[in-house]
Amino acid sequence: MNRQQLIEQIKIKKSFLSIGLDTDINKIPKHLLGFNDPVFEFNKQIIDATKNLCVSYKINTAFYECRGLAGWQSLIKTFNHLPKDIFSIADAKRGDIGNTSAMYAEAFFNKQSSDLNFNAVTVAPYMGADSVKPFLNYKDKWTILLALTSNDSSKDFQFLSSDGKQLFETVITKSQEWANEDNMMYVVGATKGKAFADIRKLAPNHFLLVPGVGAQGGSLADVCQYGMTKDCGLIVNSSRAIIYASNGEDFAEVAKKEAEKVQQEMEKELKAIGF
Amino acid sequence: MNRQQLIEQIKIKKSFLSIGLDTDINKIPKHLLGFNDPVFEFNKQIIDATKNLCVSYKINTAFYECRGLAGWQSLIKTFNHLPKDIFSIADAKRGDIGNTSAMYAEAFFNKQSSDLNFNAVTVAPYMGADSVKPFLNYKDKWTILLALTSNDSSKDFQFLSSDGKQLFETVITKSQEWANEDNMMYVVGATKGKAFADIRKLAPNHFLLVPGVGAQGGSLADVCQYGMTKDCGLIVNSSRAIIYASNGEDFAEVAKKEAEKVQQEMEKELKAIGF
Repeated sequence: MNRQQLIEQIKIKKSFLSIGLDTDINKIPKHLLGFNDPVFEFNKQIIDATKNLCVSYKINTAFYECRGLAGWQSLIKTFNHLPKDIFSIADAKRGDIGNTSAMYAEAFFNKQSSDLNFNAVTVAPYMGADSVKPFLNYKDKWTILLALTSNDSSKDFQFLSSDGKQLFETVITKSQEWANEDNMMYVVGATKGKAFADIRKLAPNHFLLVPGVGAQGGSLADVCQYGMTKDCGLIVNSSRAIIYASNGEDFAEVAKKEAEKVQQEMEKELKAIGF
Repeated sequence: MNRQQLIEQIKIKKSFLSIGLDTDINKIPKHLLGFNDPVFEFNKQIIDATKNLCVSYKINTAFYECRGLAGWQSLIKTFNHLPKDIFSIADAKRGDIGNTSAMYAEAFFNKQSSDLNFNAVTVAPYMGADSVKPFLNYKDKWTILLALTSNDSSKDFQFLSSDGKQLFETVITKSQEWANEDNMMYVVGATKGKAFADIRKLAPNHFLLVPGVGAQGGSLADVCQYGMTKDCGLIVNSSRAIIYASNGEDFAEVAKKEAEKVQQEMEKELKAIGF
């Protein structure tokens, strides 16, 4: 999916919501445990209930890898159940030396090789250009680079200042030597409020993937005030606050209601930029 | 495996070699392609031929994930074929917010959950303390944090200087607030030569995992001169130079010869510290 198609989807859906399928087998409703693949069954019902309210699903690979082969099977089945016009994100936070990052790119972007064919993958920047570039070799695919993450200890290293620029700022500027607003996005945590204004000086048009609204406490209004562009420029993710809104047999219906609340707030924000 | 057991293995084997099972199905000898699982067959023969010459096998997950479910199966079978007294490393370079890193820790350290039970996993430091700590909750397991990596573009961010310390140095000092020499190692590329001397000022006793000898051009003599401690303190990894030394039916035998060369060089270095 290219940039124009993504923007078009945001206009059609009146939403820039991504729903995070961080599906923990210990947290899903008990009545699903009798299914052959409870995690897939949960995801399927969540997707079917919410797919008109979001433009993206983000699958965090950790929640699948922790169950080994069974988890990887759930991941592939979930991927195959995603609607074709949805922006699919493998939240994998990969990154390695060049020849190895090329393998990770195959893992998430090459269906012939891996059965997976996501639109985007999240990548960790620590190892620099040659750890990121192999992901950029796929047409109409996206690399979403960690910049300023939503967790408390993002401050441990991301705020370190060198030559007057903090590390996350250097990541954003340096990476623009390898990539552009058509193939790269940045992860910026919703909990970071006004930092969005500073980031927009460095990346005025790039899409930002924004986790941390919902369970992690970030504010959608703040994110929009400081981070929105004329093209929207935001994909805001919520995971736990939507998918675990109910633990009963009504979980998918309640998840839909939670997603609707966020979508309606987003629709207002989009109206303000003429979408 | 705890620190004392690892040191004991180094003494017994007269080796601190790790062999990297970066097994690419496109690079293995053609006669293996008729096997049900050619990647596992390759690994099995390499392990059987080299297991007395090395103290560790390092499995880079990218090479398995790129083949999807089939690759994950090869990974589990390979893990199960490792000798019990070998230090097993999942070179996965994971890291995420706390609750998600806990899932990655389960993926590599909890056999009940994932069928995998490695001794160590490599972790990326960018997201800070809470992305690393969940891996430290497992007794006698190791977190191997990326510090100064072997690739060219390590310079993009790892050498940035803040308050007179380069980023990789801050990673090494800061992480000692969460971990110690009994549960943490650092990745330092063999290509970094004299940087080992500086790193030893910051982490005098920690084990270092050193990739980059062999195909990447690092020198074992330099690594030992600047990085060895009285307890050895090094696990030096070679992947391609050993496992792909021959592309014929003799591949395992030739890999054994290559591993022997490295082991013999290591034996000399260990003699110098009285091992």
